[in-house]
Amino acid sequence: MSDVRDLIIVGGGPAGVSAGIYAARQNLDVLMITKDFGGQINQKAVKVGNYPGFLQIEGSDLVKRMREHLESLNVPFETDSVGKIRKEEGIFLLDTKEKKVFKSKAVIVASGADPRPIEVPGEKEFLGKGVSYCAVCDGPFFKGKIVAVIGGGNVAFETALALSSWVEKIYLFECSSKIKAEKFNQELLEKTGKAEVIVSTLLKEIKGGKMVESVVLEEKESRKTYELKVEGVFIEIGLQPATFFVKDLADFSESDEIKIDPKTCGTRTAGLFAAGDATDVKYKQIVVACGEGAKAALSAISYLGKMQ
Amino acid sequence: MSDVRDLIIVGGGPAGVSAGIYAARQNLDVLMITKDFGGQINQKAVKVGNYPGFLQIEGSDLVKRMREHLESLNVPFETDSVGKIRKEEGIFLLDTKEKKVFKSKAVIVASGADPRPIEVPGEKEFLGKGVSYCAVCDGPFFKGKIVAVIGGGNVAFETALALSSWVEKIYLFECSSKIKAEKFNQELLEKTGKAEVIVSTLLKEIKGGKMVESVVLEEKESRKTYELKVEGVFIEIGLQPATFFVKDLADFSESDEIKIDPKTCGTRTAGLFAAGDATDVKYKQIVVACGEGAKAALSAISYLGKMQ
Repeated sequence: MSDVRDLIIVGGGPAGVSAGIYAARQNLDVLMITKDFGGQINQKAVKVGNYPGFLQIEGSDLVKRMREHLESLNVPFETDSVGKIRKEEGIFLLDTKEKKVFKSKAVIVASGADPRPIEVPGEKEFLGKGVSYCAVCDGPFFKGKIVAVIGGGNVAFETALALSSWVEKIYLFECSSKIKAEKFNQELLEKTGKAEVIVSTLLKEIKGGKMVESVVLEEKESRKTYELKVEGVFIEIGLQPATFFVKDLADFSESDEIKIDPKTCGTRTAGLFAAGDATDVKYKQIVVACGEGAKAALSAISYLGKMQ
Repeated sequence: MSDVRDLIIVGGGPAGVSAGIYAARQNLDVLMITKDFGGQINQKAVKVGNYPGFLQIEGSDLVKRMREHLESLNVPFETDSVGKIRKEEGIFLLDTKEKKVFKSKAVIVASGADPRPIEVPGEKEFLGKGVSYCAVCDGPFFKGKIVAVIGGGNVAFETALALSSWVEKIYLFECSSKIKAEKFNQELLEKTGKAEVIVSTLLKEIKGGKMVESVVLEEKESRKTYELKVEGVFIEIGLQPATFFVKDLADFSESDEIKIDPKTCGTRTAGLFAAGDATDVKYKQIVVACGEGAKAALSAISYLGKMQ
């Protein structure tokens, strides 16, 4: 076997796993480089209920099943992180944190994204116990409850809108004095009659016992702090796509997502594909990432076929 | 409840089921109209091995799980087929074969496609017993065997190329005297050294016992027939998207696929979305259809939110 593989997949979340399954079934010489399996599924606050085929499944169980699926197809993986990808004379070179260099003819970047944490006390402790980064996923579990949404952009307002189907009351806190979300979204939220939008206010702490019970807030100007009873905290201040290592080879959206051709998952570099939350795909969902991973693999297979 | 629903999903295959799950979790007043559940999965020749999360699953089991998923979310469905969709004064009207009329604010067309059958004796009888319409899905099960591919377009050649990773020998039969596939694909297939391309030849019959054992062919000019031993027959003469009922509201590809915005699954008619094999999505795969169904539902949710 040459030391130049057919395909390297960077990332072991849903998009990477799905790409790996498709590549392995095509008999490609494929390698996955990832620091873990499952990506954001591991951060799921509640059971996954929107992956077709499983009514309700623990995130950890879904990750286990995906990992077993890959292993059954003998996809080798390297527990490592990619620091930089270069392309030289038609071959990709991937430099890793462990100071190794891997080579391949094609690459799929499926390195995902992390919800941008707000970094206050209680945030990590109550993840899965009232703290969530995904209203679409977790909203139904907050039926009839009082929740806080942190953030003032479109995503935060859309989160609050989605939550309004279930919850009794939403407090939306924005740190600056101005709401960035479209007027349109603001009006929609107002119409629900369930939301109170509060600007110039900082989240300082999330408190509780077994589950979230309250948040501590600070009025920015007066620096006065107060405590508010809530049972859920949705942090929607954006995602951090893990894409820095490929910055010389792709174009990016304003929020560092890799721009892809949505039909093929191709990037501006031939042979470099990307899928899932690392990209500018409009919806960041497990099943969408799986679909995109399959697309990227099928495009890579087609690219490799034409290289021969 | 008004007789105008929020959303009607046409079709109960993977795209429709996924859309239904997302719509129901958003508390939409949704209805599914479908003649069956599972769509093309029901025609799978072998177990499904490329749906992430299931190493190997019988098509019928996957369909059952998807149906249960929908039922757990109380998505009502109507066993019927849509004959025509109209849009009048911002509302969609769906006329069905059973002479009913359903109304909704948004529609997702997930009516899928059927592999175009070649309609020869043995084709139906040996479906799942050597006859297949999907090399990507079923190729690995024909390792070391001799197979026939029926069709002379790019898809047939790509099928033969995919099969060359596994099978010992491929006969590709095209009925006309000329191969329509790109020269490029023809050369790639030649390089595998495993394929014999035969033009001006008609498939007349598929024969066997428990499984496919041979095909009967006819040379078009001489009208001479002969029998050839093969263990697999891949019929790749195209798909028939089930899209006729929406022809006044969408644009179409040359092969009758609904043209969609690949980011949102929107069509040229506001409020009309489409997902899966009924569309011009590049890859027709179960997990891709599920991802597209989720996208269409999330876009419909956003559309309905802005309508209010």
